[in-house]
Amino acid sequence: MEENDDSEIIEHHVNEEMEKKGFRTRHTHLFLESASSSEREGHSSTQSSHRLLAYSDALISIIATVMILPVAHTKIKDDEELKESLQQLLTTKIAVYLMTFLIVTVAWTAHIRLFQVIERIDDCLALLNLACMMLITFLPYTFSLMAAFPKNTLGILLFCTCVIVIGLIQAIIVVYGFSRPFLLNDQIQISENQGFYKRHILKVILRVPLFCFVAIVFSFIFFPLSYVLLAVVIFFPYISQSLKWCRGKAIGQQDETPDSMLFYSYRPNEPLSKERVEAFSDGVYAIVATLLILDICEDNVPDPGEVQRRFGGNLIEALQGFGPEFLAYFGSFATVGLLWFVHHSLFLHVNRTSRLMGLLNTFSLAFVGGLPLAYELTHEFPPNSRNELEAIQISCVIIFFAGVFQLAIWVAALFDERETLHPYVRYGGRDHTFMLAKLALYPCVALATFFVTCALSRFSAMVFHLVQMGVPVAFLLLRLLVRLGLALLRRLLGPAAVPPAHRAPEEDDPRVPFTDMLT
Amino acid sequence: MEENDDSEIIEHHVNEEMEKKGFRTRHTHLFLESASSSEREGHSSTQSSHRLLAYSDALISIIATVMILPVAHTKIKDDEELKESLQQLLTTKIAVYLMTFLIVTVAWTAHIRLFQVIERIDDCLALLNLACMMLITFLPYTFSLMAAFPKNTLGILLFCTCVIVIGLIQAIIVVYGFSRPFLLNDQIQISENQGFYKRHILKVILRVPLFCFVAIVFSFIFFPLSYVLLAVVIFFPYISQSLKWCRGKAIGQQDETPDSMLFYSYRPNEPLSKERVEAFSDGVYAIVATLLILDICEDNVPDPGEVQRRFGGNLIEALQGFGPEFLAYFGSFATVGLLWFVHHSLFLHVNRTSRLMGLLNTFSLAFVGGLPLAYELTHEFPPNSRNELEAIQISCVIIFFAGVFQLAIWVAALFDERETLHPYVRYGGRDHTFMLAKLALYPCVALATFFVTCALSRFSAMVFHLVQMGVPVAFLLLRLLVRLGLALLRRLLGPAAVPPAHRAPEEDDPRVPFTDMLT
Repeated sequence: MEENDDSEIIEHHVNEEMEKKGFRTRHTHLFLESASSSEREGHSSTQSSHRLLAYSDALISIIATVMILPVAHTKIKDDEELKESLQQLLTTKIAVYLMTFLIVTVAWTAHIRLFQVIERIDDCLALLNLACMMLITFLPYTFSLMAAFPKNTLGILLFCTCVIVIGLIQAIIVVYGFSRPFLLNDQIQISENQGFYKRHILKVILRVPLFCFVAIVFSFIFFPLSYVLLAVVIFFPYISQSLKWCRGKAIGQQDETPDSMLFYSYRPNEPLSKERVEAFSDGVYAIVATLLILDICEDNVPDPGEVQRRFGGNLIEALQGFGPEFLAYFGSFATVGLLWFVHHSLFLHVNRTSRLMGLLNTFSLAFVGGLPLAYELTHEFPPNSRNELEAIQISCVIIFFAGVFQLAIWVAALFDERETLHPYVRYGGRDHTFMLAKLALYPCVALATFFVTCALSRFSAMVFHLVQMGVPVAFLLLRLLVRLGLALLRRLLGPAAVPPAHRAPEEDDPRVPFTDMLT
Repeated sequence: MEENDDSEIIEHHVNEEMEKKGFRTRHTHLFLESASSSEREGHSSTQSSHRLLAYSDALISIIATVMILPVAHTKIKDDEELKESLQQLLTTKIAVYLMTFLIVTVAWTAHIRLFQVIERIDDCLALLNLACMMLITFLPYTFSLMAAFPKNTLGILLFCTCVIVIGLIQAIIVVYGFSRPFLLNDQIQISENQGFYKRHILKVILRVPLFCFVAIVFSFIFFPLSYVLLAVVIFFPYISQSLKWCRGKAIGQQDETPDSMLFYSYRPNEPLSKERVEAFSDGVYAIVATLLILDICEDNVPDPGEVQRRFGGNLIEALQGFGPEFLAYFGSFATVGLLWFVHHSLFLHVNRTSRLMGLLNTFSLAFVGGLPLAYELTHEFPPNSRNELEAIQISCVIIFFAGVFQLAIWVAALFDERETLHPYVRYGGRDHTFMLAKLALYPCVALATFFVTCALSRFSAMVFHLVQMGVPVAFLLLRLLVRLGLALLRRLLGPAAVPPAHRAPEEDDPRVPFTDMLT
């Protein structure tokens, strides 16, 4: 509270006066004026939140992918059939990984939503946010405790306490932000409904701690009910939205949600800061790409004494045993790097991210996070064993889904392309085909590798490594290939108009015909 | 090469024509025009390099801090004196960590320098950069191999091969960039000395692979010489610059380096992208803050069977043994978070980062990277043992240096404040004192804790934990304390002019007097 000196309070009052006089009407140029005036206010203690959010994204992305480590480091005995041990893995650790990823990304989405309302920060908010981050990074541990001891109330208690405290800190941030309107989003800053916004946002935020509090109470009485409650907390927005959507489709377009609900509306087309989606994805890709080298740096430097004893001081011989690890590292890095490259290309063409796209991105990232597990598996088994074959097939499945969900982001963007895409990549645009080819490359390659390894069970490892080497080259040649393909198509089809069947059925507004893409 | 279609080549020629006609003179408005014209060129395959660089920063920051893991995970026996085992640690693993950190940051600085020249990218450059990243992330492993087997040529061979390939990829990027001038920095794009730039940059870049090649050759003849060569590679710019500086001071201001040497000049005031310094620092702080929770998530979930057997199913009792780990985690997170907060506040006031500031930042980050080691040590020893006391003192020393180097960044910025700082924090400015107080807080607290633990050897752990809890509160109260302190100072000194002794001696240009700061 001691952060505001008198001059700031005066400026703030002046601002309110201005609002009362002339800012009630919402014209675009007034909007911009207000934006720049609030930028110009020059509170030296008020800061752009950009870097705080980037740091938060980095922290949350590391935490989201961390729970793959206990899965990847699970020791599987060579003689055990992978399928059996996999079942054991699948039921517990992978489920824990996926649920933790989901929970952390839910917390992250709430964080984005909060800082779309509060656009500027000061020292106090920065410290509150760090406290919030500390608790979010502790969530995976409490959750894995809950998963390991499902019948013990302690896990639920710790998890719910964390969630409650996070919710309360967010509520404090909202109250603090609304008490200093120059910190708020410009649109809310000039709105006359500030009180309404504040109540609406607080209601949404405090719903989660309330549910958790009830879950704590039930954990002492009848604990299965608290799990149901926790599941409701996570899926509540989705459930309520799909119910609303179904009702809307059944009864017909009833209530167009008012403009005041732009924030915290939980609709699929609610905007989600593109910058933060990118930063979070970068964090996940970066940590996944380096997880294997972390292990290699720690475990695969042989002990000098042992090298002397077992290999007569011949280091090359000693390192040969680690060969598969290095190959797995380069393969994993190349795959993650290229998936990042596709993601990067995709988001270059995106203007605005919607909530649905963010959700699909989360699914894609959850599979990307599974890659260290896949590569850990591929080098863990003796060559040409049945386990190795299955490990390679699992890798293909993971890569396939990571790629397919990227493709799904693209499709989701196309549904609302006027809002979300740059003009030149809209359906039938110049770069549309090329982008599609880039997105389709990994799913196709993964699928093809999967079937080839099924057929040639003996050479599976060789096929897999060849594919790893080949994909970067494929990306380099892709533009050429697409051009060749289009030229071929043009020759086959001729300059005649393309039958309407070639158009996507869900898009009915007039647009560039397919042939324009070919020329 | 197949990425450029005909229209792009034509545009490119048009650009060259324009350059020949009117762009030779270097007026600022032409500058801006050229900048926007190259933005407007609309190569859909040409992209802003922003996200590529952010991703590279994330990868490099993770890799730089990774080598602290082998140090932190070194098992020290409780009965062993910390000092003895520390000596063993210090001589090998910590040295490896610091050297790896240095090497990786050198590679990172080279990367910054390269992408300050090449400001826009296309798919080909993105893929080349990913290849470069893959090799940079492999450097720590090759280096630790070199450290473990100093007399074996294989380590040197692998390390040098990596560095050579990185250098060659960078050279290819430069050649590729100069063959497509719309990718270049605007200043170079309109310069008539493009050929000169290209040669100068290639010369600087290829010097490193050349040195490494010679080092490889010597590793077969007389290996100590190859280590000397590698050291020269890393410190060459510093050595040559300090020699130049000494000569300049001795003989007098001789040759003002020409403007053409703005890039790759290796002068201490050479600009270093502030955005990237921030992104790299964020990455280091984020990975350091989460390293402990990674361990906790993996190791500290007790086995259900064991809990049943040893603690009769009482989870709380089973977890009590992990108490120190949790305390260490929260303490470590709070310390790293607050050091990040200070760094964030500092860089809010910085307009432009110089090479010297980047170097000091690297030193600060190297100590921050040591924090997981310090906290690992504090919870590893039995309470009130001599080892615990020493571990706490080591923590204090690490925090102290991390803070002091942050302070040094501030001092370095003040030396060239017109270039580097925002007006309101320049020496004597309104927020100058507050910033100074923020920067001084951690070094002071660390120093005070160090001496208190020396005096009260029995309560050292308690003191340390109290300090951990107290520091966030201190940051919240800091503004109030600074204001109180200034008011006190004002009352003591009165409105009289302050004697010139209070001014910093190295700053001789007229500026706001000290009393202005007090009002």
